[in-house]
Amino acid sequence: MKKKHITGRVSADSSLFKKEVWKAGTMIYPLPVVLATCGDFDKEFNVITVAWTGILSTDPPTCYISVRPERYSFGLLKKTMDFVINLTTKKLAYATDWCGVKSGRDHDKFKEMGLTPLRALNVKAPLIAESPVNLECRIREIKELGSHYMFIADILQVHASEKFIDKETGAFNLGTSQPICYSHGKYYTLGERIGKFGFSVKKRKKKR
Amino acid sequence: MKKKHITGRVSADSSLFKKEVWKAGTMIYPLPVVLATCGDFDKEFNVITVAWTGILSTDPPTCYISVRPERYSFGLLKKTMDFVINLTTKKLAYATDWCGVKSGRDHDKFKEMGLTPLRALNVKAPLIAESPVNLECRIREIKELGSHYMFIADILQVHASEKFIDKETGAFNLGTSQPICYSHGKYYTLGERIGKFGFSVKKRKKKR
Repeated sequence: MKKKHITGRVSADSSLFKKEVWKAGTMIYPLPVVLATCGDFDKEFNVITVAWTGILSTDPPTCYISVRPERYSFGLLKKTMDFVINLTTKKLAYATDWCGVKSGRDHDKFKEMGLTPLRALNVKAPLIAESPVNLECRIREIKELGSHYMFIADILQVHASEKFIDKETGAFNLGTSQPICYSHGKYYTLGERIGKFGFSVKKRKKKR
Repeated sequence: MKKKHITGRVSADSSLFKKEVWKAGTMIYPLPVVLATCGDFDKEFNVITVAWTGILSTDPPTCYISVRPERYSFGLLKKTMDFVINLTTKKLAYATDWCGVKSGRDHDKFKEMGLTPLRALNVKAPLIAESPVNLECRIREIKELGSHYMFIADILQVHASEKFIDKETGAFNLGTSQPICYSHGKYYTLGERIGKFGFSVKKRKKKR
């Protein structure tokens, strides 16, 4: 590989050095924006949009969602101690925004947004059929952190829509589902693919 | 607004309903991918790439990074009990990937990647000058979760590069910095802007 580390160097741009100092704020972006389902498939269930979510540990696979106690979903989460994380797409963007603004106290969000609940294998919360990836999660611990409570959960099972699985190779191509993210108050699709993990150290195949 | 809720309905696509069942995995995407700096500006410091990061609570602003104990940064984090989250951009993508693959045990990552350390106001860890946003974080708790330890931290201060602040309005435009995210093993820029938070319920201005 002719490109040595030097090519990775960030060329100096002194205008980047001038910083404005702000008070503390939640400025980590871009973030995932997921539809978290909770409650009981056979009784009462709901869906809430969450950007305060992520992976906490690889093995065992552990994740979290943070939810305000005022939210309708909060009681459902504490009752069943499980939830499902449903990834979102450009097609689901309207429902994603709407489910983050409206309350399950006043709306049947599944019905009004045309979402289809499917029975999960390990948890009471439903999967959203229209989501390309669903993660069944069992809550391990609830942690009060101020405005939000963090629900730390074990990921028990993953469901992937066959539509995005290459029939020949068996590879799952999440990009084909047109995932969306949340950045500084706005929703975006993904843009240019820059490289795979490890691209900066990958050796090029020699030309013969 | 003529578009009623019905327009938000996801049109049925039965091919999405066919799911392949997988074992548990860390399938939440897209994720942020940040450069977390740790150590002491005046002595020894390092930078580690982290996608296991996010916001835990809005008030007080609380975040986390999860790090494997084998990593060189792990000892530095425990020593100073602080870190800085530096957001990444297309221009920083090479350094972001490289700093996630290489170890501070063997490399002076700042030097080799041409990153400029700046002194923070409240913590010992340095800011990265080339990053558009830096969050000074003080570790509140360390939680062992398996392969990774979660460092729960209070966000104490935010620095924003003036370059991305509109001189007339004073608005900070993170999009101009070309943020990147990490999705299923690949780095991406952001693509199409779909809408602002709340777009699904916003009333259109009436035409006169």
